Amino acid sequence: MSQQENELIQRISGLLGGRRRKGSVALGIGDDAALWVPKPEREVVLTCDWFLEGTHFLRGKHPPHAVGWKCLARAVSDIAAMGGVPRCFLMSLALPADLTGTWLDRFLRGLRRAAKELHCDPAGGDTTRRKEVLISITVIGEVSRGEAIHRSGATVGDAIYVSGTLGEAELGLRMLRRGLGMAKATNAALRKHLYPRPRLDLGQWLAEKRLASAMMDLSDGLSTDLPRLCAASGVGARIEGDSLPLSSLVSRAEATKLALHGGDDYELLFTVKRRNERRLTRKFRALGLTRIGEITRERGISITDNGKSIALRSAGWDPFR
Amino acid sequence: MSQQENELIQRISGLLGGRRRKGSVALGIGDDAALWVPKPEREVVLTCDWFLEGTHFLRGKHPPHAVGWKCLARAVSDIAAMGGVPRCFLMSLALPADLTGTWLDRFLRGLRRAAKELHCDPAGGDTTRRKEVLISITVIGEVSRGEAIHRSGATVGDAIYVSGTLGEAELGLRMLRRGLGMAKATNAALRKHLYPRPRLDLGQWLAEKRLASAMMDLSDGLSTDLPRLCAASGVGARIEGDSLPLSSLVSRAEATKLALHGGDDYELLFTVKRRNERRLTRKFRALGLTRIGEITRERGISITDNGKSIALRSAGWDPFR
Repeated sequence: MSQQENELIQRISGLLGGRRRKGSVALGIGDDAALWVPKPEREVVLTCDWFLEGTHFLRGKHPPHAVGWKCLARAVSDIAAMGGVPRCFLMSLALPADLTGTWLDRFLRGLRRAAKELHCDPAGGDTTRRKEVLISITVIGEVSRGEAIHRSGATVGDAIYVSGTLGEAELGLRMLRRGLGMAKATNAALRKHLYPRPRLDLGQWLAEKRLASAMMDLSDGLSTDLPRLCAASGVGARIEGDSLPLSSLVSRAEATKLALHGGDDYELLFTVKRRNERRLTRKFRALGLTRIGEITRERGISITDNGKSIALRSAGWDPFR
Repeated sequence: MSQQENELIQRISGLLGGRRRKGSVALGIGDDAALWVPKPEREVVLTCDWFLEGTHFLRGKHPPHAVGWKCLARAVSDIAAMGGVPRCFLMSLALPADLTGTWLDRFLRGLRRAAKELHCDPAGGDTTRRKEVLISITVIGEVSRGEAIHRSGATVGDAIYVSGTLGEAELGLRMLRRGLGMAKATNAALRKHLYPRPRLDLGQWLAEKRLASAMMDLSDGLSTDLPRLCAASGVGARIEGDSLPLSSLVSRAEATKLALHGGDDYELLFTVKRRNERRLTRKFRALGLTRIGEITRERGISITDNGKSIALRSAGWDPFR
């Protein structure tokens, strides 16, 4: 810490909403730690996520406003995946000295927008100087006791559902890398990549109504994330290739690959007991809930396409590959 | 995430204590988020801290076991500085592929040791691959409603106290940089640098007895941290140079510089109303509580030495300098 860092903290604090807030955060940025008062009879939901230059975003390609939005939105998505309500967040931020001007301002504006729209108050953080932009976000949320939806609750015969369409965020990343669409704020794929919307309403509704037996968010692609849900539950899965909610922006073959392996969608993947399926139909029509397959006793993930069943290989996003 | 990352998470989870724990963490590592149940009538204390290779530690100099201990201990120190009790932590960890063997094991053993001794359970985290070791730790703690000690409560005439001795951690860092003392586990200065002990008992006692009007931990050195406490409280301070609790390992002149400007001590700096001072005398004799000066109406920090009073310039640790 330093005078320069003191000033940086004051700027962050100023843009994000000050030292003492009206919300549930009793004491925010500027002391050794933040104080927060949870509601009674709730469990606290805790998650943290990296957002690193070169690994999760490209400084020359990703607008700082989108970096600010996305670093918080993707961490909040983990709260949605438990059926929780986000309350506040902490940010560890490392910055090169030459980004503490305009870049930081735009980044903070995107972050502030996400904090406001996702109802997640800034509570504190830590800053330091570094050659590259490094961000770690911790989100603190709440869920009614016993209502959180785990990854481990899927049982044989449960239907497998996803929200929205799959693969468009990956398509958006490809457009961004090729320098396409930067000016087209209306482009759906690019918007989905830059400004993902965690499915908070859906997650909370499924938790409250106890409709999902297992749930997680899709961050690394269906072919990587579904095996995780199955491993946690001790089951396998069969996916119907025809049923995947595909992007209509590219060919069917391309859209299928993107839906299976594309990362960064932040849609919800969840399983539902058959007797509960009819209760899903009316809600979330605009978002779309699609039945993509079933949980099986046989371990492993298979995909059925044109009557043939083949094993699905994980090929989602993987920093260690 | 990936198979390799799945394996990494399993190793971390295995070494740190598994998926479902007996403590207050209901659901730990391995789901989208962790669940934690706070005690009733408490406020939640939240803090996060960077611990970055090259900025906060040197990979070639700092033993991985000490990196594991210190990254958690320094974040827990912020909980101590509020008078709180640590409960659980989240870790964002980025690692080079070639450190996922022995280095990681030793690091995790140091971290596990700290988690156990500081009663702070691992709740979850995020991992990724990176050229350098990057760590961000979030600690979640509790404090009884209204008992947390802020930086902003110091008033004119309050006595200023510190715990322990000041400057030895900086001395330990110098020894480490020169390659001295690596084998001498008994060396006090080196031990203080590598294995700082957050003053949890003292912080909690001061909060419970309502003895401190303001408090913070000393992480960046007295000459940097005291101005922060004074700024938050809207006051100034006068330090008695003769009263500083110095290291006896170096000359008096050198020890004074270290006590004023050395970082990483993680001792507590707190202010006490005069009428409460006599209540401090019996407790914490082994640790040592030293009166080093007084809060003044005049802004700025002065230091009195041999009868002369001069302005104290901030010269503590500063990554932005």
